[in-house]
Amino acid sequence: MKKILLIATGGTIASVQTADGLMPGLDGKGLIEHVPELRNICHIDTMELMKLDSTNIQPEHWVQMARALEANYDKYDGFVISHGTDTMAFTSSALYYMLENLAKPVIITGSQLSLTEEGSDAPANLITAFTAAAKGRPGVYLAFYGRLIQGNTVKKLHTEQFYAFKSINVPEVAVLNHGELEFNPEYDQYLAQNPRHSSGSRLIIRDKLDTRVAVVDLIPGYKNEYITALVDAGCRGIVLNLYGAGGIPGTESPGNLLPAIDYAIAKGVKLLGATQCINDGVNMDRYEVGITALKHGVVSGGMLTSEAMVVKLMLELGEQPLSSNAPADRRTNHCK
Amino acid sequence: MKKILLIATGGTIASVQTADGLMPGLDGKGLIEHVPELRNICHIDTMELMKLDSTNIQPEHWVQMARALEANYDKYDGFVISHGTDTMAFTSSALYYMLENLAKPVIITGSQLSLTEEGSDAPANLITAFTAAAKGRPGVYLAFYGRLIQGNTVKKLHTEQFYAFKSINVPEVAVLNHGELEFNPEYDQYLAQNPRHSSGSRLIIRDKLDTRVAVVDLIPGYKNEYITALVDAGCRGIVLNLYGAGGIPGTESPGNLLPAIDYAIAKGVKLLGATQCINDGVNMDRYEVGITALKHGVVSGGMLTSEAMVVKLMLELGEQPLSSNAPADRRTNHCK
Repeated sequence: MKKILLIATGGTIASVQTADGLMPGLDGKGLIEHVPELRNICHIDTMELMKLDSTNIQPEHWVQMARALEANYDKYDGFVISHGTDTMAFTSSALYYMLENLAKPVIITGSQLSLTEEGSDAPANLITAFTAAAKGRPGVYLAFYGRLIQGNTVKKLHTEQFYAFKSINVPEVAVLNHGELEFNPEYDQYLAQNPRHSSGSRLIIRDKLDTRVAVVDLIPGYKNEYITALVDAGCRGIVLNLYGAGGIPGTESPGNLLPAIDYAIAKGVKLLGATQCINDGVNMDRYEVGITALKHGVVSGGMLTSEAMVVKLMLELGEQPLSSNAPADRRTNHCK
Repeated sequence: MKKILLIATGGTIASVQTADGLMPGLDGKGLIEHVPELRNICHIDTMELMKLDSTNIQPEHWVQMARALEANYDKYDGFVISHGTDTMAFTSSALYYMLENLAKPVIITGSQLSLTEEGSDAPANLITAFTAAAKGRPGVYLAFYGRLIQGNTVKKLHTEQFYAFKSINVPEVAVLNHGELEFNPEYDQYLAQNPRHSSGSRLIIRDKLDTRVAVVDLIPGYKNEYITALVDAGCRGIVLNLYGAGGIPGTESPGNLLPAIDYAIAKGVKLLGATQCINDGVNMDRYEVGITALKHGVVSGGMLTSEAMVVKLMLELGEQPLSSNAPADRRTNHCK
């Protein structure tokens, strides 16, 4: 029987009602005891890493999760992380990029209703997660609503529905059918066309994250001053949630934002272009308003979610060699 | 035969290929000439209001559209506005709120492929729009992919697919079936439960918009300094795209953002809570992290889209009476 480690971090799945509203209360052992059929799938040990509403999860917690996985990597066949749903897409993207050469399954799961609520989705999600950890493929995945989604394509798109998470621009990985994982042939086709980067066979934890990153949503009337203020406040990387296929108001518009773009680029700030439309990615080569943005130094984020871009930017900024003209405090905000 | 005015504003629907990429080229007459069957639906006059990629559309353009509608209000039975898709959700929300006591149909439409491209969705969208303007109900609606959507619930969710716009948290209004509009009984049920505000029978144009508004997306690692910098740069209203049902990292988190929330509120900045999950709205009374945000002065945006909240904030800030302790420049950024 496969040995799986449950790393508990809190979240709705573990929440209980308090005078201040729902707050994480159950620990990992408590979760497992509520779903006895999990013991038929695999042997489970539990670890209490933290007990947080995932709204409170920060990049330093991603590093703690990665280090906990590393410390137990040789002792287990796979891992399940129980987590709140609110920042789950960020954590699953983070672990996807931070765990390089991962050769075991790491499955993140949670639920929309807490395990102790009637009709909760938690038992089904835990069963999917442990099945994937015991019988699934190596890599970081989300298990939710009977489905597996690749870690860096996850997006939470419903605050209430059980089918809350969608895979953006990439097919879902697998579904759970009568206790067995059925892998999606479309996902395998996607993988064949998009082979994954590997730097060797040894697990590497990438934990140099520069968290001085923000997301800026364009809206009509947006002011250049808002972007320059962000840059002056120390922001080193910005994911721009652009309109449609990736446009920025230019000289044709009274709301021309190119001066702020130029200011940020001149200050060494990295700008990644995403779409506020969620689906289909950006195609900045198509319209004049996108081509101009590229010419001014915005980099297209392609088909990635903004969550994945945020993590990639943090890693890129954290790992870049200190150049002579970089600000002296460039690395002060790293997670150690 | 009903008399409909087409107000052309540019957009992909009117775009032609240039050396710099796609740019608006066709005028309103050009659009109509490409779809001769429109002449069977109604009598059409055209007006060239602007010729912009909608990425370049700003709040002052919303005011121009509203004023053009007002100037022609008595001469026509209905109106169609051709518009780029990129900021269409903002314009349809803006006109929804800016045209009070509207007693005629105002239908916004556009397309994913330009009218001159093979297989374009433009002819079908124009037919839906003119049918709704000639035979539909009073109010502001989007016509796209054979559907009508209430103006303030529109969101663009695909950069490439023809079915690009969805109605968020409200049923679609109608579908076009063999040239006839079929109204959705679920929408009528929604209307019965959510009767619309009316201040009389005379059309009123609300055009006092304070555009000093921004949208802030929470991400793990977000810094208090980024919000305070926005406030110090003159921002008077912020739509916070919160996690899930509406949480803000609090004192339990190393990323506690309550100090910035308190700073903004103390400076008189209005904070509206939205969800970055797009669907199901916010329910800030449920979790401790939402309840705390409410206690600190964030106002729940409920089921509204962030686009609708942006417009509502601009109007609320623009229309509020100048109080003695308001900053002297409070109204300098209004659209006249």
